[in-house]
Parts: sequence; structure tokens; C-alpha cells
Amino acid sequence: MKKTIGILGGMGPLATADLFRKIVLMTKAGSDNEHIRIYIDNNSQIPDRTAAILSGGADPVPQMSDALRHLEACGADCIIMPCNTAHYFLPRLQEQTRVPFISMLAETAKACALRFPGKTACVLATRGTLASGLYERALEAEGVSCILPDEAQRDVLMYAIYDCVKGGKPLETVRQPMEALLADLSARGADYFILGCTELPIVAQELALPGDFIDPTSELAKAAILFCGYELK
Amino acid sequence: MKKTIGILGGMGPLATADLFRKIVLMTKAGSDNEHIRIYIDNNSQIPDRTAAILSGGADPVPQMSDALRHLEACGADCIIMPCNTAHYFLPRLQEQTRVPFISMLAETAKACALRFPGKTACVLATRGTLASGLYERALEAEGVSCILPDEAQRDVLMYAIYDCVKGGKPLETVRQPMEALLADLSARGADYFILGCTELPIVAQELALPGDFIDPTSELAKAAILFCGYELK
Repeated sequence: MKKTIGILGGMGPLATADLFRKIVLMTKAGSDNEHIRIYIDNNSQIPDRTAAILSGGADPVPQMSDALRHLEACGADCIIMPCNTAHYFLPRLQEQTRVPFISMLAETAKACALRFPGKTACVLATRGTLASGLYERALEAEGVSCILPDEAQRDVLMYAIYDCVKGGKPLETVRQPMEALLADLSARGADYFILGCTELPIVAQELALPGDFIDPTSELAKAAILFCGYELK
Repeated sequence: MKKTIGILGGMGPLATADLFRKIVLMTKAGSDNEHIRIYIDNNSQIPDRTAAILSGGADPVPQMSDALRHLEACGADCIIMPCNTAHYFLPRLQEQTRVPFISMLAETAKACALRFPGKTACVLATRGTLASGLYERALEAEGVSCILPDEAQRDVLMYAIYDCVKGGKPLETVRQPMEALLADLSARGADYFILGCTELPIVAQELALPGDFIDPTSELAKAAILFCGYELK
């Protein structure tokens, strides 16, 4: 009996649609019936994760738990979250359920070690994810070295994530700052970039940004497909 | 209190992801929290609808009902289905629940009457949808005249839908036949085309096919957004 996926989504909505689409496109299937059964709660009412970590914003765990209850009731065999920052709260959520979470950060770190051995990663993410040290710890566990963006570069990333992808401003407004950011971080020693916020693969795809990237959304999609007993296309 | 959407999906999976993405992109929202809460059961185990209508294939209603139960349990305020052919079974499903279904076909017919008054539509769809007469009745109710593809053209559409989008064959293999089909139907009197199978907007988008189209997936997305009390972008 093959397994099913629960997506604890809404963080953000477009990133949730992106993860869903990537799972479908990456699954080896010749008909509707050969695809994975996927349950999604795109819970748009989850408070902002970065605000909760950095500035005393509302705790997102109650709304995340509400979505988790729905996915459990549907019968999901694993839970995945298309939000890197949300992984800060994963231990509190995992305590509430026997259904295993698959960690996007752990899967990403494994992919980095495999695809770019001995190279230096640069983590592009929200201020919340960067301040939490979540990625540094996940990468360290796999022996992957990394550098982080500076304060001005974090402003650029927050604008791309919040104003453009989540807020609907044109992505073109962030093209030049993103290209400058990638060039500067390459000069500082980054061999490749982790698109460590689920809005960033959307930015990189739409703007066709140059560089070597690891897309955590794709890594999570692959891990979930394999967990469920399906093959990759 | 704004309303939520339940997507009875999996028919097919990529079309379900397409509908979800269109709802997100068409909703006027400046942050995650301003988006609609959406529940999805991408139930890949629903038997093929066209086979059930035309050739005694397994009844899809039990698996559709299973997904409907999940969406009801989550608390969905309306149900939408990203599969035109599935609407053949809508009356049997609506009998099972008080949650209202929004009909993709009725919304599409309204859009045709509004956008192309006095013009002739051509319905591009699966053999199941075409044989059922579902679209002809929905269009007639809005005073919209239509023509239908011939037998050889239905083969082309079935190939594009089943082999390419659902089955993963390259879309380029259907470019020339689709272009010939559109040219021939235009010559036969079609002023515009209804992409009346949820795999077909994906074909038209990816191949950038020329012509005037009505995309039922987009019309359904718009109707669901407005039903929930949100504004269109």
C-alpha cells in the first residue's frame, strides 16, 4: 500500500502551489491513478513565522496545529511544510502527532553534501530563518560549510519574499538588487546558493537568475515522493 | 467571516495544481494572511470519468465521495472540481452534501455569453464530456451557440489530454495536430474555443497556441474567489 502526503501549507500560498506542482511533475506516473494522493490545508491564517521568532509576533503553532489536525483526519502518512522558517516550530508540532514530518532543511543539507562536496554554500532566507541558525545547524550536521548574507542583503531578500512574491509587487523590481546580491556573495566565497525560503525558487525561476542553486522545495518534493514508495521521473 | 474553498482534486493532479495556483494568483492579497484558506484532496484514486461514461469503467463516485467527506470534515464552504468531465457526476455528489458545488461549466457558459456575445464557441474536451452533452446544455442555458470537434479531432484532444498532460509525453508532439485542429475548426465557423478539459489550458499555455480561448479553470477560480468574499486582483 503506497503512502499519502499531507501538506501543511499557506506559508505562503504560492509556495504551497509550487510544492504541490513540483511533486506532481517529479513523480513517475503514466496516468492520474499512478500519482500520489496528497492532502493540502492551505491555511492562510497562520501568523507570520519571522515576526514570531524575531519580534514577539503571534505564535503560529495553534493555527499550524489546526491544519495538522485536518491532515491527520484525512489520513496523511507524512507531513511536509513549504516554509523554511516554519521549521523553527517543527519540534513543537512533531510532539503533537505520530505522523512523521519530513524536514525540508535536513533534506536540503543532504542534497548540498551530495551535489557540491567540499564547496561553500550561501543561505538565502528570511531574517527569521537566518537569525534562528536553523540552516547552519542542518548544514553542519552534513559537514557543509556556508556563508550568510549581510544586513543590506537581507533587506533585499525580505523585499523579494514579502513585497514581491507574497505581496504581489512586480518581480522585475527586484531583478537588479538580486543579481548584485548574487555577484557580491560569489565574490565573498559562495560556490552555490540555497534558495532557503520557499518564495525564492519562484523568484529565481521567474527571473531566470544565473548561478548554481539548491531548491529546498524540489528536495522536499523528491524526499516525499520516495517516502511514499513512488519513483522519481 | 470570509469563506473557504474545498478542491475535490486529482482529476488530474496537474490540473488540480493549476486551479490552486490560479486561485492564489487571481486573489487580491498583500500578504499570506489575506489569501483564501483552501483545502485540497488530490485523490489520485478516482477512476477515469470518460471511461465510466462511455465504456462501463468503474464508477468514480465512491472515490469522489471519499474526498468530499474529507473536505467537509475540514469545513470547506464550497466545493469545486478541476475536471470538466467529472461534472457529469455533480448531481449525485450534490445530493450527498449541503456544501454547495460551484459548477465550472455554468461559470464558463456565463463567461462565454459575457465576453463573446453573438459569437460561436467550439468546445474542446474529452470524449466523455462531448458525448454527455454537458457543455451544449450549459451553453444553451446562456444562449451561446457552439460547434463540436469531429471524430479525428477528438482523437487529437484525447492524445493531448491523456498521453501528454496526464501521461507525461512531450507536449511538442501535439503542437502541429493542435494547430491544424484550431485552424480547421475556425474555418468551420468557430469564433473562439472553450478549453473544456482542465488539461487543455496547460496545453494552450505551454505551447502558446494562437486563438481566442475561454479557460474554464480560470472562470472557476474567479467564481470561487468571489463566492468566498474576496476580491479579484
